[in-house]
Amino acid sequence: MNGEWLNVPCAPLNHVTRSEAEHRQTRLTKPPGALGRLESLAVQLAAMQGTARPGLERVRIAVFAADHGVAAEGVSAFPQAVTAEMIRNFARGGAAICVLARHLGASLEVMNLGTVVDTGPLDGVLHLPLGTGTANFTRDAAMSREQLAHALSAGRQSAERARLADAQLFIGGEMGIGNTTAASAVACALLGAEAAALAGPGTGLDAQGVARKAEVIARALALHGEHFFDPIEVLRRLGGFEIAALSGAFMACAKMGVPVLVDGFIATVAALVAVRRCAETKDWLLYSHTSAEPGHLRVLEALGAQPLLNLGMRLGEGSGAAVAVPLLRVACALHNDMATFAEAGVSVKTD
Amino acid sequence: MNGEWLNVPCAPLNHVTRSEAEHRQTRLTKPPGALGRLESLAVQLAAMQGTARPGLERVRIAVFAADHGVAAEGVSAFPQAVTAEMIRNFARGGAAICVLARHLGASLEVMNLGTVVDTGPLDGVLHLPLGTGTANFTRDAAMSREQLAHALSAGRQSAERARLADAQLFIGGEMGIGNTTAASAVACALLGAEAAALAGPGTGLDAQGVARKAEVIARALALHGEHFFDPIEVLRRLGGFEIAALSGAFMACAKMGVPVLVDGFIATVAALVAVRRCAETKDWLLYSHTSAEPGHLRVLEALGAQPLLNLGMRLGEGSGAAVAVPLLRVACALHNDMATFAEAGVSVKTD
Repeated sequence: MNGEWLNVPCAPLNHVTRSEAEHRQTRLTKPPGALGRLESLAVQLAAMQGTARPGLERVRIAVFAADHGVAAEGVSAFPQAVTAEMIRNFARGGAAICVLARHLGASLEVMNLGTVVDTGPLDGVLHLPLGTGTANFTRDAAMSREQLAHALSAGRQSAERARLADAQLFIGGEMGIGNTTAASAVACALLGAEAAALAGPGTGLDAQGVARKAEVIARALALHGEHFFDPIEVLRRLGGFEIAALSGAFMACAKMGVPVLVDGFIATVAALVAVRRCAETKDWLLYSHTSAEPGHLRVLEALGAQPLLNLGMRLGEGSGAAVAVPLLRVACALHNDMATFAEAGVSVKTD
Repeated sequence: MNGEWLNVPCAPLNHVTRSEAEHRQTRLTKPPGALGRLESLAVQLAAMQGTARPGLERVRIAVFAADHGVAAEGVSAFPQAVTAEMIRNFARGGAAICVLARHLGASLEVMNLGTVVDTGPLDGVLHLPLGTGTANFTRDAAMSREQLAHALSAGRQSAERARLADAQLFIGGEMGIGNTTAASAVACALLGAEAAALAGPGTGLDAQGVARKAEVIARALALHGEHFFDPIEVLRRLGGFEIAALSGAFMACAKMGVPVLVDGFIATVAALVAVRRCAETKDWLLYSHTSAEPGHLRVLEALGAQPLLNLGMRLGEGSGAAVAVPLLRVACALHNDMATFAEAGVSVKTD
């Protein structure tokens, strides 16, 4: 595969602007540390954006959608036609992520990477079909080498468009019936976990459905188990077009120096693949929320991630990350606009 | 005291608009429950605001400031002059809550209820001195009956101004060197807890300072222990002007039907007083965040509260509540603006 770009090093963080931001935090009219995570967020963004006064006016949200052959195993609470139906809902602006993008003033792009039901051309949706969904990975690799390369590249190109639009933050979302099964399988392969430890209800399976899903994942792990030393090969065999695109987008963002706010379970699994392939990608990732999908916690722990929110969300689409954007903006506003002790004539600590 | 208004019943929630909002949530294009707490928040706001399409364009923030006689016992990391200095910082717009109010487009009012250092008249600060701070409650009651009545009334009047401004949400903040000591003492009295269980670092005491603070609180609990059956008398003996004003504001909001978003440790203790005095106040309280102040968790548990955020904040001023406002707005936007399954032509769950 033409994946030479994966070997390009990640951009370095700016330690000068990080130090400047840290110093500024100590001078603001509040007890040291009293703004908690909002202080460290502002400092992290200062290091990423290369300015002691970080900002988040321009946020880019990219949603990748695709179908999954493994849906044939009965692993979702919704019919597979919903993937294409939701892409139409994205185009019409009725989905959660569309509402959030408008609410935040964020730019949104949607990519259809291949669905079972053809959506036809839709306003505002990039049509980049790599097939009518992936292959059923209980029988074969989910993707060919070419499909994987194109999916990674679709993510990279999306990140490049974000960079060209001068985005200060990139959010990657996903939609695809069956994709918690694929993400769980990828996570099991990379973390050496049992299928039962990472299979969850997804969009709403009952206990019997979750057990069935775990059994499907276990079969796939047995079939592909010889290839788990290579994260990109794991992605090809067990992932999906949209998961690979997210991994590609995250790696490309890190290489170009665009901060990423990671969404929920599936996006975090894509981030795990990215960090396993290009370790320094981790410097460019912020984590938005802990999903209600039970496997998410384990993947977050493996990444040393400390998400900002825990609201029991489990929608995908990038929605959890979008909901966390106002916290990052608030962190920047406080950092940039509060008075210092000297400016305000306020006394400092007595000890 | 002229506290007849405390006996006025609280406004009822609107169960019709609550049911309408619940029904709408089931029809939006997402798996049921997939937006987690954002769904129940929208439904709660619908019940409070009496409309199936709740909104939060008009947010009112009121900050009450005052000094505390107990500061003489050496219970704070900052000198007492900081209370007046921070009131000037509020007037100039440099404090965290000023930045947050501007960022949110929220209206902000600041009330000086009595400080050791006279601030003089300041633009944008209501000057309502009830004394040069409270009395040292290790020796005497913190407030006279008249002072308490005026402090509660200052809160009620602030809530009434919010109502007149058609506020859809009320946030009460506080500032006062020594006020975590007062709040901890009130919480100990109402919860039957030991001083050591609720004394914390406040603005930044070290372990020795926290031990001293616990010892000061223990002395006060011993002195006033006969009066702990009456929450309003506890407030008078161990509270502060700004804590009483918060309790008064929360009770008044509940009586008028204005939703309240409760801030951190001190505001939550004020809410505990309010709920102990007028139980139905609890229907009108939403909880914004879990503070880094260790006693906060115990007070939240006593109220059955489930805060939205846990960012390690411990600033007060209403800042934690202000930081949570965007989450409530996002909940409303999703609730009001997402497409339904029928509108979008999306298939429903198969089971």
